[in-house]
Amino acid sequence: MDRAPTIKDVAERAGVHAATASRALNPATRGMVNTRTANRVLEAARTLGYAPNSAARSLRTRTSSVAGVIIPDLRNPVFPPIVRGIEDELREAGYMALVGNTDGDPERERELVTAMRGRQTDGFILATSRRGDSVRTEGGVPVPTVLVNRRTDAGDIPSVTADNAAGVHVLVRHLAGLGHTRIGHVAGPRELSTGWERYRAFLDATTSLGLNPGGEPVEFAEAFTEAAGHAAAARLFAAHPDLTAVLAGNDLLALGCYSALADLGRSVPSDVSVTGFNDMPFVDRQRPALTTVRIPHYDIGREAARLLLERIGSPAAPAKRVVLPVELVSRDSTGPVAS
Amino acid sequence: MDRAPTIKDVAERAGVHAATASRALNPATRGMVNTRTANRVLEAARTLGYAPNSAARSLRTRTSSVAGVIIPDLRNPVFPPIVRGIEDELREAGYMALVGNTDGDPERERELVTAMRGRQTDGFILATSRRGDSVRTEGGVPVPTVLVNRRTDAGDIPSVTADNAAGVHVLVRHLAGLGHTRIGHVAGPRELSTGWERYRAFLDATTSLGLNPGGEPVEFAEAFTEAAGHAAAARLFAAHPDLTAVLAGNDLLALGCYSALADLGRSVPSDVSVTGFNDMPFVDRQRPALTTVRIPHYDIGREAARLLLERIGSPAAPAKRVVLPVELVSRDSTGPVAS
Repeated sequence: MDRAPTIKDVAERAGVHAATASRALNPATRGMVNTRTANRVLEAARTLGYAPNSAARSLRTRTSSVAGVIIPDLRNPVFPPIVRGIEDELREAGYMALVGNTDGDPERERELVTAMRGRQTDGFILATSRRGDSVRTEGGVPVPTVLVNRRTDAGDIPSVTADNAAGVHVLVRHLAGLGHTRIGHVAGPRELSTGWERYRAFLDATTSLGLNPGGEPVEFAEAFTEAAGHAAAARLFAAHPDLTAVLAGNDLLALGCYSALADLGRSVPSDVSVTGFNDMPFVDRQRPALTTVRIPHYDIGREAARLLLERIGSPAAPAKRVVLPVELVSRDSTGPVAS
Repeated sequence: MDRAPTIKDVAERAGVHAATASRALNPATRGMVNTRTANRVLEAARTLGYAPNSAARSLRTRTSSVAGVIIPDLRNPVFPPIVRGIEDELREAGYMALVGNTDGDPERERELVTAMRGRQTDGFILATSRRGDSVRTEGGVPVPTVLVNRRTDAGDIPSVTADNAAGVHVLVRHLAGLGHTRIGHVAGPRELSTGWERYRAFLDATTSLGLNPGGEPVEFAEAFTEAAGHAAAARLFAAHPDLTAVLAGNDLLALGCYSALADLGRSVPSDVSVTGFNDMPFVDRQRPALTTVRIPHYDIGREAARLLLERIGSPAAPAKRVVLPVELVSRDSTGPVAS
C-alpha cells in the first residue's frame, strides 16, 4: 500500500463495516462490539500498521472521555494532591475522572473496575495495586492502566512512583549523621511496593553504613495507618528498648510512633528520633514537627495522567516506569543521639 | 384512563416513538433528544400523571449512572471526607462520581458542568456555589442538583450544610465564659454562605451577650485559605490591638491568625485566644491544638448524595434543606482572658 492505511482498509481486511471497525479501535466504544470481532479488527489494524488520527478522534470524542481513578481512601492525606494533579492533567486533555475508594479491598477494586468499564471508561489510574498484581486484559488486549504511587514486582504495568530507595537512604544518612547507630524500622505492609521498597532500602542503607550490628530491628505494620503504626512501634520497642531512632514507613506510621513512645514515657526527639515518609499536608505542624522525605504528590498525579493518555493512544507500547525524585525535610522530630 | 399510564401512552400523546419518549424521560439520556421534543414528552408525562418504574429502570441502567461532584479544591482538607461520604452513598445505589475542581472560578464550574452533562451525568453535587446562584435548567426542566456545605440565599436548590449559626453561637459563648469581652472576627468571603452565615451569627451572638460595646471588629478574608486569614488577621489587629480573642471563619483562616499573631509577637492563647470552624483533620495536632466546631464531614457527604438520588427520582419536588448539628471541640488555643 503506497498511502497510509485508513479505517476503511482495516474494516475491509477484517470483513466488517467501517463503523464497527471504528468502534472496535476506540477503547471507549470497544465494549459495543463482540470480542471476537474486536480482536479481528485489532489484528487487521496491527497487520496493516494502521495508526488512528488521535488528534481528530480526540476532537470528535472530546466530551465522552473518562478515566477511572481508584484509591484506597481519599481521607488519607497523601491522595488528595495526587488526585488533584490527575484531574488537572486529564481536564487539559478533555478527559474527566471517575473516582472510587476501595479501603484496600481487592474485591471492591474489581467491582469498581468492572462498573467503571461499563461506563466506557478509557483507562485506569490505580493507587491500590499490590506487588503481585498483573496486567488486566479484555479480549486479549490490555486495558490501559497506570499505577500511581505503587507498582508491581513484574513491572509490566506503567507506573509513577517516588524514589523510595533514595528517600530511605537520605533518612538513614541523616540519622547516622546525628550519631544514631541503633535505628529501628516500622515498615509498611509487605504486599505493597511502598512498604516493601522502603524496607529493602532500610536494610541496604543500615548495612552499608555498618549500623545495627546485632541484627535489624524491624516490625511490619498491618496497614499504612496511625493505629497500625502505634501497634508496630509498641512491639518494636518492647523487643528493642535500646533503639535511639525509628524510621517509619510513612508519615501516618510515624504519627503512630509518636503516640506509642508517649505511652512509654519517651520523648521525641530527646529520647528517640522519629522520621516519616511523604511529607503529607500538616506534618510540619505536628508536635514535634516531623522530619520526613517530601514526595512530589501533585506532580506524581500529573505524570500518571500523562502516562495514561499515552497508554490510551498506544495500549500495547512497552510499560514505562517513571520515578520522581524526593527531598529530605529536616524538622524537629530528629536530634542528636542522647549521650 | 383506568390503568396507570405507560410509556406508550406518553409517547402517543407527545406524538413520538416510545424509544424517544423513554430517552426524554431519563435524565441520563435526555441530551440525545432535541429540546422541544423532550419538553413535549415531559409535558405529556405530567398531564397523564406518568410515573416511571424507577426500580426497574435503575436495574436496567445500573452501570450507566453517574453523578458529577464539583468542589473548589480537593486539597482543602474539609473536602476529602465529604467526597468520600458522597462516593460511599452513591456506590450503594449503583452510581459513580465524576470529580472536578474549580479553584472557586465560576467559569471553570460552568465548563465542568457542561462537560459532565455531555457525559450524560444524571445530576450534580456542588460545593462551589455562591449565595446568588440560581437553579440550572435544561429545556425548562431543572437539572438535578444538590449543594453541599454551601447554599444559596434563595434556598431553591436542595442543600446539606452544617449548622453554621449554632456553631458560632457556641464558640462565642465559650469565649465569653473565659472572660473575653473584646472578640474580633476574621470572616470568610461574603459571597459564600459559609462566610456570610457565620458572620451574621457572630454579630447576633456578640450583640445578644453584650460584647464588643464599641462596635464590631470584623475583617473579611478574600478566600478560605491560610494566607487570606493571615492578611485579614494582620488588618484586624492593626485596627484593634486590644482584642483578646478572635473567632476565625474556618480552620484554615484560624491557622492564618496563628501566624499573623506570631508575627506580632503575641502568644496563643496566653495573649489572644483563637477559634476555628470545621475541625478538619489534624487541627488537633497544631501548635496549639485548635479549639473549633466539628462538622460531620462524612455524613454531610452521605446526606448530599442521598438527597441527589431523591432529586434524580423527582426533579421537580420542593427543594429540601438539610442542616446537620455541630459540636464544640475545646482544645488549647483558647484560654482565660489575660488579666
